[in-house]
Amino acid sequence: MESTKLLNDGAKQIMVQTKDHNLSNGGDVVIDLDRGDPKMFYTYWKKVDNECSVNIKASELISYFPNPKDADFFCQMPEFIDAVHRVHRLVGNAVTEGRYIIEGTGSSQLFIAALRALACTAKETTSNKKHIPVVCAEPYYSFYKEVIEQERSELYQWKGDANTFQSESGPYIEVVTSPNNPDGTTRKPVLKGEEGMVIHDLAYYWPHYTPITSPADYDVMLFTLSKATGHAGSRVGWAIVKNKEIAKKIHKHLFLMSIGSCQEGFIRATKIIHFVADSYEHDVDYMLVKPPKVPVLFEAEGLFDYGHRILALRWKRLRAIAQRSEVVSLPDFSPEFCNFKGKLTYPTPGI
Amino acid sequence: MESTKLLNDGAKQIMVQTKDHNLSNGGDVVIDLDRGDPKMFYTYWKKVDNECSVNIKASELISYFPNPKDADFFCQMPEFIDAVHRVHRLVGNAVTEGRYIIEGTGSSQLFIAALRALACTAKETTSNKKHIPVVCAEPYYSFYKEVIEQERSELYQWKGDANTFQSESGPYIEVVTSPNNPDGTTRKPVLKGEEGMVIHDLAYYWPHYTPITSPADYDVMLFTLSKATGHAGSRVGWAIVKNKEIAKKIHKHLFLMSIGSCQEGFIRATKIIHFVADSYEHDVDYMLVKPPKVPVLFEAEGLFDYGHRILALRWKRLRAIAQRSEVVSLPDFSPEFCNFKGKLTYPTPGI
Repeated sequence: MESTKLLNDGAKQIMVQTKDHNLSNGGDVVIDLDRGDPKMFYTYWKKVDNECSVNIKASELISYFPNPKDADFFCQMPEFIDAVHRVHRLVGNAVTEGRYIIEGTGSSQLFIAALRALACTAKETTSNKKHIPVVCAEPYYSFYKEVIEQERSELYQWKGDANTFQSESGPYIEVVTSPNNPDGTTRKPVLKGEEGMVIHDLAYYWPHYTPITSPADYDVMLFTLSKATGHAGSRVGWAIVKNKEIAKKIHKHLFLMSIGSCQEGFIRATKIIHFVADSYEHDVDYMLVKPPKVPVLFEAEGLFDYGHRILALRWKRLRAIAQRSEVVSLPDFSPEFCNFKGKLTYPTPGI
Repeated sequence: MESTKLLNDGAKQIMVQTKDHNLSNGGDVVIDLDRGDPKMFYTYWKKVDNECSVNIKASELISYFPNPKDADFFCQMPEFIDAVHRVHRLVGNAVTEGRYIIEGTGSSQLFIAALRALACTAKETTSNKKHIPVVCAEPYYSFYKEVIEQERSELYQWKGDANTFQSESGPYIEVVTSPNNPDGTTRKPVLKGEEGMVIHDLAYYWPHYTPITSPADYDVMLFTLSKATGHAGSRVGWAIVKNKEIAKKIHKHLFLMSIGSCQEGFIRATKIIHFVADSYEHDVDYMLVKPPKVPVLFEAEGLFDYGHRILALRWKRLRAIAQRSEVVSLPDFSPEFCNFKGKLTYPTPGI
C-alpha cells in the first residue's frame, strides 16, 4: 500500500510500504509531513543528561524583569544574550556584534512581534490605511499563513506567494526562510521594492542542516532553540536586529503579548547553548579564560556533528524509500564549502 | 517634599517624605504605582530554596507537545493541570471539576487568546463586520487598554469604561477583575446585555489578598502564578473554561501565538503549587496516599498565611504614610468570612 492520507485536522501523512515487517504497524512507514517534532537529538542529550542539567531554586527568577536597569530592553536576560553572541561567533552563521538580540517565546511569537514592529514603522510615514501585505515565495512554511489569517490584524494581511505578488508601490513585508521550510533550499528575497521590508527566518541555518557559507547579516533575523539544539518544548527564540528603534518596538510588542518570556526556559537555554559551544571551543586560549571543561565535553561528539550524521542517515533511508515510491520524490542537493566544518558538506534539511 | 512624579515613559510614582532618614535616597519613600513586581514573597521562597527546587536534565521537555495524544489540548501538561485542580480544591476559590484548564504564557497571553476565542465565536453567528467592543469598569488595569490598542485587531476594540458604555444590542466583552487591580474591590459585571460575554480576571482571588467567600464559577476565569505564588518571571498562567468549544479555541489561538508555552516554567510551577498545597494538606488521609512530606513543610508557615501577614504589615505602613499625606488617600475595606482561613479576614490587596 502506498498512499497520501489526510488526517482529520488536515495534517498530511505519507505512508510508504517497506520490507520491514518488524514494525509494530505491520510494515508501514509513516512520514508525518505536517507536524514536525525535533526529537532527533534526544539520544545525544540523553547521554549528557547530568552534565547539562539545570537546577532552579524556589527563590530564583521571581521578578518580571531580568534586566530592570535597561529601560529599552528590560525583558532581556543578559546571560542568555551572551550565550547567543558566543554561539553565533563560534558557528559563523550570523553577525551579532553591534546588533540587538531580542528574546521571544519561540520564533513564532517573535515572527508576530517583528511583523507588528515593521508594519507599525511603515504606517508611521503614511496615512494609507490599507493592510501591509505579507508575502513569501512558495513553497512556504504553512504556519505563517495560518498565524496571520487567524490573527486578523488591522496592520497587515497575508498575500501569499511572493512570486506572483503584484507589487504596487508601497510597503510590504517579505518573509525569507533560508534554508527553506519545507524544501531545504537556500533563499534570497524575491521582491525588490523600495519600501520592502524583509524578515529572515534562519531557524535551519545551522551546520547540522546546511553548509555555513557566510555569516548572515540582515535587518531582522529569527532563530529558535527548537531547531538549533532540538529543545522545542522550551519555546526559546531570538531575533537579531540591526536597527535599535525596530528592536525596541519588537521588545515592546513582546512585552504586551506576554510580559516577556518564561525565564526558566532562557536559563536552561543559556546552559544548553554554552554546553554546545564548549564542546567545540576547548583550545588553549579558550581554556585560559574559561573554567575547565568536564571530560565528557572532550570525548563527546559535538551536537552539530552528531546532528549532521543523524540527518544524513535519515536522508539516506528516505531516499531508499523514495526510490521505491511513486508518490514521494526528493530534491537533490549540491555540496558547498561549510566554513564551520572547514570542508564541503551536503545539505541535510531537518526531517 | 510630597509630589506625584511622571517618569519618562508615563509611569507614575508617588514620593512621600517620611522621617526615616536612614534610607539611601535621603528619606523619600517611593511607591511605584505603575509597574508592580511581586517580589514580596521572596523571603518566604528563599527559606525553602532547596526543598522546592527543580532539576531539569538535558533530554527532558524536548517535544513541542506535552500531551500529544489529546487532539484538542496537545499543548497542555497533564501534571500541571492536576496541580491546578488540587490547589483550587484546597483553597476553594474556583470550581475546576468538569472545567477545562488551559495553560498560557502568563494571564496576559491568555487574556488575548480568550478575547480572540470569544470574539470569533460571536462573529460566527453574525455577518456584522464591526469590532466587538471590549469594556471594563473604571478604575481598571491599564494593561488591558494598552494591549488591545497596540494589537490593532479586526475582531475587537477597546471601548473603555463599562459604566458609560452605550450598550447597543449585540455582542460585547466585559472584563471583570476581582479583586480589582488597582483598587482591590470585589467586582461583578456591570452590563447585562443578552449577547454579553465576560472574562473574569481572578489573579488576586487568593487568601493572601482577600477573603475567599465562595468558589468562583464563571465562563472564563484567568489566574496567574505571578500573583498566586509571586513567581512572575515564569510567565505561567491558566484559564478555567466552562465550554469545551471556547476552551479549544483558546488553546488553538495560544498554539498560533507561540506553539504553546515554555514547559520548564510549567514543570517548575507544578512543583511550586504542590509545595504550597502540601504545607496545608498534611492530615492523616492525605498522608496515606501521598509520599511523606519533608519536615520543613510542617514547620513552615503556609504561603497564604505568610503572604497575608506581609501584606497586612505593608498596608499598616502605607496607612501610616497616607495619614501624613495630602496626596495619597486609601480605601477602607470591610472584613468578610474567609472559608479557607475559617475566620473573618480583611482584604489586603497586593502592593
